[in-house]
Amino acid sequence: MRTGVWLVGGRGSVAVTSTVGALALRAGLAEPTGCVTELPALRAAALPALADLVFGGHDVVTTPLTKKAEALAEAGVLPARLVAALTEELATVEAELRPAPTGERQASVIEEIVADLTGFRERHGLDRVVVVNVSSTEPVPAADPAHADLAALDAALAVGSPLPPSSAYAYAAFTAGCSYVDFTPSTGARLPAVAELARRAGVPYAGHDGKTGETLVKSVLAPMFAMRNLKVRTWSGLNLLGGGDGANLADPAANAAKSASKQRVLGETLGYLPQGNTRIEYVDDIGDFKTAWDLVTFSGFLGTAMRMEFSWHGCDSALAAPLLLDLARLTAAAHRAGRTGPLPELAFFFKDPLGEVPHALADQWGILCAFARGLDADRTEGTPDAVAA
Amino acid sequence: MRTGVWLVGGRGSVAVTSTVGALALRAGLAEPTGCVTELPALRAAALPALADLVFGGHDVVTTPLTKKAEALAEAGVLPARLVAALTEELATVEAELRPAPTGERQASVIEEIVADLTGFRERHGLDRVVVVNVSSTEPVPAADPAHADLAALDAALAVGSPLPPSSAYAYAAFTAGCSYVDFTPSTGARLPAVAELARRAGVPYAGHDGKTGETLVKSVLAPMFAMRNLKVRTWSGLNLLGGGDGANLADPAANAAKSASKQRVLGETLGYLPQGNTRIEYVDDIGDFKTAWDLVTFSGFLGTAMRMEFSWHGCDSALAAPLLLDLARLTAAAHRAGRTGPLPELAFFFKDPLGEVPHALADQWGILCAFARGLDADRTEGTPDAVAA
Amino acid sequence: MRTGVWLVGGRGSVAVTSTVGALALRAGLAEPTGCVTELPALRAAALPALADLVFGGHDVVTTPLTKKAEALAEAGVLPARLVAALTEELATVEAELRPAPTGERQASVIEEIVADLTGFRERHGLDRVVVVNVSSTEPVPAADPAHADLAALDAALAVGSPLPPSSAYAYAAFTAGCSYVDFTPSTGARLPAVAELARRAGVPYAGHDGKTGETLVKSVLAPMFAMRNLKVRTWSGLNLLGGGDGANLADPAANAAKSASKQRVLGETLGYLPQGNTRIEYVDDIGDFKTAWDLVTFSGFLGTAMRMEFSWHGCDSALAAPLLLDLARLTAAAHRAGRTGPLPELAFFFKDPLGEVPHALADQWGILCAFARGLDADRTEGTPDAVAA
Amino acid sequence: MRTGVWLVGGRGSVAVTSTVGALALRAGLAEPTGCVTELPALRAAALPALADLVFGGHDVVTTPLTKKAEALAEAGVLPARLVAALTEELATVEAELRPAPTGERQASVIEEIVADLTGFRERHGLDRVVVVNVSSTEPVPAADPAHADLAALDAALAVGSPLPPSSAYAYAAFTAGCSYVDFTPSTGARLPAVAELARRAGVPYAGHDGKTGETLVKSVLAPMFAMRNLKVRTWSGLNLLGGGDGANLADPAANAAKSASKQRVLGETLGYLPQGNTRIEYVDDIGDFKTAWDLVTFSGFLGTAMRMEFSWHGCDSALAAPLLLDLARLTAAAHRAGRTGPLPELAFFFKDPLGEVPHALADQWGILCAFARGLDADRTEGTPDAVAA
Ligand SMILES: NC(=O)c1ccc[n+]([C@@H]2O[C@H](COP(=O)([O-])OP(=O)(O)OC[C@H]3O[C@@H](n4cnc5c(N)ncnc54)[C@H](O)[C@@H]3O)[C@@H](O)[C@H]2O)c1
Ligand SMILES: NC(=O)c1ccc[n+]([C@@H]2O[C@H](COP(=O)([O-])OP(=O)(O)OC[C@H]3O[C@@H](n4cnc5c(N)ncnc54)[C@H](O)[C@@H]3O)[C@@H](O)[C@H]2O)c1
Ligand SMILES: NC(=O)c1ccc[n+]([C@@H]2O[C@H](COP(=O)([O-])OP(=O)(O)OC[C@H]3O[C@@H](n4cnc5c(N)ncnc54)[C@H](O)[C@@H]3O)[C@@H](O)[C@H]2O)c1
Ligand SMILES: NC(=O)c1ccc[n+]([C@@H]2O[C@H](COP(=O)([O-])OP(=O)(O)OC[C@H]3O[C@@H](n4cnc5c(N)ncnc54)[C@H](O)[C@@H]3O)[C@@H](O)[C@H]2O)c1
Ligand code: NA
Ligand code: NA
Repeated sequence: MRTGVWLVGGRGSVAVTSTVGALALRAGLAEPTGCVTELPALRAAALPALADLVFGGHDVVTTPLTKKAEALAEAGVLPARLVAALTEELATVEAELRPAPTGERQASVIEEIVADLTGFRERHGLDRVVVVNVSSTEPVPAADPAHADLAALDAALAVGSPLPPSSAYAYAAFTAGCSYVDFTPSTGARLPAVAELARRAGVPYAGHDGKTGETLVKSVLAPMFAMRNLKVRTWSGLNLLGGGDGANLADPAANAAKSASKQRVLGETLGYLPQGNTRIEYVDDIGDFKTAWDLVTFSGFLGTAMRMEFSWHGCDSALAAPLLLDLARLTAAAHRAGRTGPLPELAFFFKDPLGEVPHALADQWGILCAFARGLDADRTEGTPDAVAA
Repeated sequence: MRTGVWLVGGRGSVAVTSTVGALALRAGLAEPTGCVTELPALRAAALPALADLVFGGHDVVTTPLTKKAEALAEAGVLPARLVAALTEELATVEAELRPAPTGERQASVIEEIVADLTGFRERHGLDRVVVVNVSSTEPVPAADPAHADLAALDAALAVGSPLPPSSAYAYAAFTAGCSYVDFTPSTGARLPAVAELARRAGVPYAGHDGKTGETLVKSVLAPMFAMRNLKVRTWSGLNLLGGGDGANLADPAANAAKSASKQRVLGETLGYLPQGNTRIEYVDDIGDFKTAWDLVTFSGFLGTAMRMEFSWHGCDSALAAPLLLDLARLTAAAHRAGRTGPLPELAFFFKDPLGEVPHALADQWGILCAFARGLDADRTEGTPDAVAA
Repeated sequence: MRTGVWLVGGRGSVAVTSTVGALALRAGLAEPTGCVTELPALRAAALPALADLVFGGHDVVTTPLTKKAEALAEAGVLPARLVAALTEELATVEAELRPAPTGERQASVIEEIVADLTGFRERHGLDRVVVVNVSSTEPVPAADPAHADLAALDAALAVGSPLPPSSAYAYAAFTAGCSYVDFTPSTGARLPAVAELARRAGVPYAGHDGKTGETLVKSVLAPMFAMRNLKVRTWSGLNLLGGGDGANLADPAANAAKSASKQRVLGETLGYLPQGNTRIEYVDDIGDFKTAWDLVTFSGFLGTAMRMEFSWHGCDSALAAPLLLDLARLTAAAHRAGRTGPLPELAFFFKDPLGEVPHALADQWGILCAFARGLDADRTEGTPDAVAA
Repeated sequence: MRTGVWLVGGRGSVAVTSTVGALALRAGLAEPTGCVTELPALRAAALPALADLVFGGHDVVTTPLTKKAEALAEAGVLPARLVAALTEELATVEAELRPAPTGERQASVIEEIVADLTGFRERHGLDRVVVVNVSSTEPVPAADPAHADLAALDAALAVGSPLPPSSAYAYAAFTAGCSYVDFTPSTGARLPAVAELARRAGVPYAGHDGKTGETLVKSVLAPMFAMRNLKVRTWSGLNLLGGGDGANLADPAANAAKSASKQRVLGETLGYLPQGNTRIEYVDDIGDFKTAWDLVTFSGFLGTAMRMEFSWHGCDSALAAPLLLDLARLTAAAHRAGRTGPLPELAFFFKDPLGEVPHALADQWGILCAFARGLDADRTEGTPDAVAA
């Protein structure tokens, strides 16, 4: 099952780490550490093999892929030896990176994206393509009646540019018959009009905002307090990060979108919102290794006051990259299995998941495992390309 | 369903915190924070009400209950106002505390314990009694062929003292038709001979070693790393604690038993044992509020090295006390439902649970919820005292 | 040497903790832990004895002193037994607390303050009075030409209200011949016009902003990095605090004044300003025990990247209260020794000290010790009231 | 002033990091970060220039210098580009590394060391040589009457091997007219007999145990608590480390020597010893970047309990290497200035300094600065080789 992975933001840190990693795995140069779909509980036959993934993408910058990979190696995100060993393979991917279409009329921008996607699919004889948004986080767009339904949106597109970029990519993906994953907190397929298009096109989508650090830890610690009936009084956090995405988040509008999706897990798993905030602060010299610190104060039996604090020192790109591969494989398999519209079963991967889903990681894990088993069940019952796979 | 709770170590910190708390809850003076059986998912009708619990116990010391309660209030473990408000109720419990039987012949010690238990049950017209071991942690006993089966044990008891105290209490509990909970890492019902007696007597038992601090946190963090396929390289911890139990653990033999049960969760949930140790260190001036610090180093995608550390600052007695009430209620209900032998479904509460059970907290939680639901199902189908309850 | 200590904000947390503490020390009910002037190196004969301090003050609220003291005891800031034992002594202080004068015309407000101060001094036959500002932090006032010199200020006072409250108190203190200490980051005697008045009145003053927590730690850690020629790259901090002063600091204007004075120590001791910020966040449920967390990243030999983080969990009022007593004693002694204008030798106590002084704590300590020795030297050479003392 | 630096343990991590660094500094490829003697306050004209240092040494292993340097680069201790750029210079040093002399008779081992040292000095026309011990930490030797004075020692050497290796190196150094620095906690020149030899030979020596991590932090934090009259109740620490020296410290005897020297600073600066211990634990996978965690509990005014914790994540070799260069320069200058015997002025660098010296870092810094100024003062007054320098 040859599957295309089209990366919006294909020259960014997450995208390039994923790309190098997938190539290294295919070449047998690395272990699949961090790849959830390589765990026994999820290793479904219905998933495209890592070796069957073909990469391409859009970006607004033109930094050569190998230059970005070398910079990531210099920063300790990737082993330099892998970048050196994969020069040829990286050149093949480089050939599939396109400048992000621009232009006055959003309708023609979307057309160009569609053309790039179908060209990619045909050129490589791909069974299907997953578009994955790993571009810079956008500000929350202003409310617009054109977002409410597809007819209104199409009318608005005829005369103007009503969509934020992430939603334009989702629109184009669906138009081209591709599934779509939003790894960022941006709008993407969240607009009712765009979601409607996905259902009409008969393709699935997943999102939002990859869960890689502090929120991941929260998604197991908050349930722990809840299961023990301990009352969390305050939960405050500070995320210090440098690097590319950090600079973007220094923009207050983008920061707000991100901070909000970081707090949601507490309310959802505890059943109430403790006092305190999560702050993101950009400190250039911190670089690619983020440090998050959280303080939790709670009361126990008879009101006794207690506390816990943790520091998480993680490399965001290294945490995100394997999940991107997981999401591409799972979404492609769902597409093949005939799934349409949102995939709430992939909540495990996201800070701000689609649908009414549990936010406790273990519950999300259970749902994900059932989903993977279901994919194989469907398959043995004879899905379209079961024979070819 | 009037249920007796017989506390071995009834004048200790955990026991007295539980006792004061149960009295305060009954009097409507406190919220059931920390009581797991008060959560909606577990609030089974088959459980004895908190108001139906009657307390008694053994101890080797004679410190009056109220004096110990005042000391705990001084140390910040209990609110002083509760102790002041419950003087009368505490006196009622004081009247049910007995000196721990001693004597040259263990057989007669056991007989005395049995007599104390049956006297307690009859005096208060109790439906059943749960014996809960919250006495000081014992050293691991030397291997003894008398531990292997009940016949050998009874023969040995006829001539000597083959059992460590915790097992003698378990033996006596089973003989008296009581269920038994071991909240400590001591031997208790772990010996094959004693376990055999439980089955013969038709009573259930639970254990070992209440999971209240660092291990609780480990039981959610280790599965998080496992679910994300991140490779934990080292996990090292230091537990600094003062107070009564701390002093006891300064004894290397007791300490070893405890440290071992603290590491088990890692091997069981990760599938391999990372490097590193957990140390317990007694520092008198730390007092009742323990601090545990853990450092976890792990590698992610393509080997990138990352780390997490946490500090847990908890009051062990306040964390343990409500669990003791939960365990008494759940074990009594299991007894009534006709359960015999080990209760692996209560693994949620223990560092070193009985049976082949999952060690991830969320999995243990699922099993516990099903168990509680099952108790109610049994009950509506007509368990012995369903009418009276 | 009977010395008055007039507390602006006399019903606040710091003031009441100081007052209870001073009374407890006088009554022999407590140890002088935290009192710097009780250390051998500083125990100068020229200092007024703790037993010679007489308390009074202004406040805008009317909460009775004992009620505030009880609230502080409830919150764990003070031992309840001390409050209970000192009821009578507290009543004597209560009798010396006055409502903060208000009124349309600032000139008459100042007159009333002067009258309160001289009344206090006469009523108790005090040798001198130190006015200590421990009232709520004010916003930074707008620039005003009237602040530039005393003539302009007096002209402006004749027609309006040109001063922020802290400066009005300083003005009144100097007019009444009292020395003045600003324990807050507010303006106080910083205005050239007010400073001029101090010199004319021949009285000394000290400030600004008591150094009690994170900044104290910074003032020893930053010099450590400097002495070892390690390059600090980033220094970021988060202060989580509840309680009265915390709520006030939630006001962005007050917060800005405080955050700025918290960063100064880095630039001054390192010789450059590392990246990063210090944030103050008010979280009501955190209460009186603040938690500050700091992350320092630095590079060593050949650029190797390293890091340090610390958490400080302190009770601000308990840290500040003994310093207030130290400052009152030292400033009174300086006053007696004939010192006029700013006292840069007291930089040890302040986040934002007056004058061109070192910011490394050890250097400030050396200067403070020399200052205390100097007081005694002056004294033996015959200062005004050397005979009476 | 051409100065030899003879490294005992010349193929170890600290030695090789120092060597690469000194060569890189000389070649203008790196900044002198971490070199204390490059700070303005210490930049004495009397010190040999970094470019004037010539390296040689002994080791018991034969790993080529460049291989060790590459391993350190792989581990992130050194930049790989420096190792690559300095191949030629490293080969020159390689030529001066000798196998550590062995043999049945210690007297002849010492003779061989002396021969190696004098050969080195003559071959390079060195003004003087400093022997620096950076070999593996030894166990504390058994008490031996031969250690008490030089006559007894010489008698014992005539018939046996009375000295631990570090002391044999010190003995040889002094015999060869070289000064000696002990960067390890080993015995070295601490034996009265060996110290006597230094005085007779007219050479200075310094030690013991480089202060690079947790103890460095303690040496500023403990004085902070002391200066503020805060009562430290407990101070507990855990040091987790891998790498070569770590493995050696896993040996309980060596560990004991190290842990003891780590606690000394507390007693010396606080005036009392708080409860708690410092533990060193070897965890292989932690590698060269050590993590130390310390918890300090203290009480403030009126007994209020507070706490501080810190984590230090440092690269020991990178912290130690520049200090080795500082010590070599300072000791050589002291030698030239005619200093004999112990150099307590260098306490700033050591966990377990020689002589009755302050343990607060700031005080040690003051003494060190005065020492450096003194070296220049001596020099302008005409020291032996002032003209040549
Ligand atoms: N790394 C993580 O752990 C993580 C977790 C959750 C979400 N995310 C999100 O993933 C995204 C990527 O993160 P990153 O660290 O790789 O950031 P990055 O800045 O390194 O990469 C983003 C890339 O997107 C490109 N881009 C910007 N606008 C574009 C557009 N309109 N069309 C096409 N390309 C565009 C940029 O040029 C850049 O190359 C961010 O939105 C981030 O918030 C990352
Ligand atoms: N508090 C927690 O979080 C926690 C968690 C897991 C396990 N535990 C275990 O619970 C037990 C109790 O802890 P604690 O803090 O209350 O300790 P504690 O020392 O305050 O109380 C123990 C009591 O047991 C009594 N005792 C000792 N030997 C006895 C005997 N042979 N018969 C009867 N009584 C005896 C002692 O006199 C004492 O009163 C310990 O074994 C501890 O390891 C506690
Ligand atoms: N506690 C510390 O560690 C610390 C350190 C540095 C500075 N400070 C400063 O000390 C001050 C006092 O802190 P706190 O915790 O006691 O605060 P608090 O809020 O408990 O007390 C302040 C008191 O000042 C009174 N007040 C307000 N405006 C007044 C006015 N115009 N005239 C007279 N009284 C007035 C308030 O009514 C209140 O009683 C704050 O400015 C704080 O920033 C405290
Ligand atoms: N790195 C630090 O921060 C630091 C701080 C204080 C003290 N120290 C001490 O410095 C020493 C060196 O540390 P390291 O990390 O370089 O250790 P290392 O193990 O990397 O190097 C020690 C070297 O000494 C050699 N050696 C052993 N016995 C010898 C002998 N008898 N003669 C000659 N060479 C011998 C070993 O072969 C090895 O090459 C240790 O004693 C350590 O405790 C280091
Ligand atoms: Na911490
Ligand atoms: Na920490």
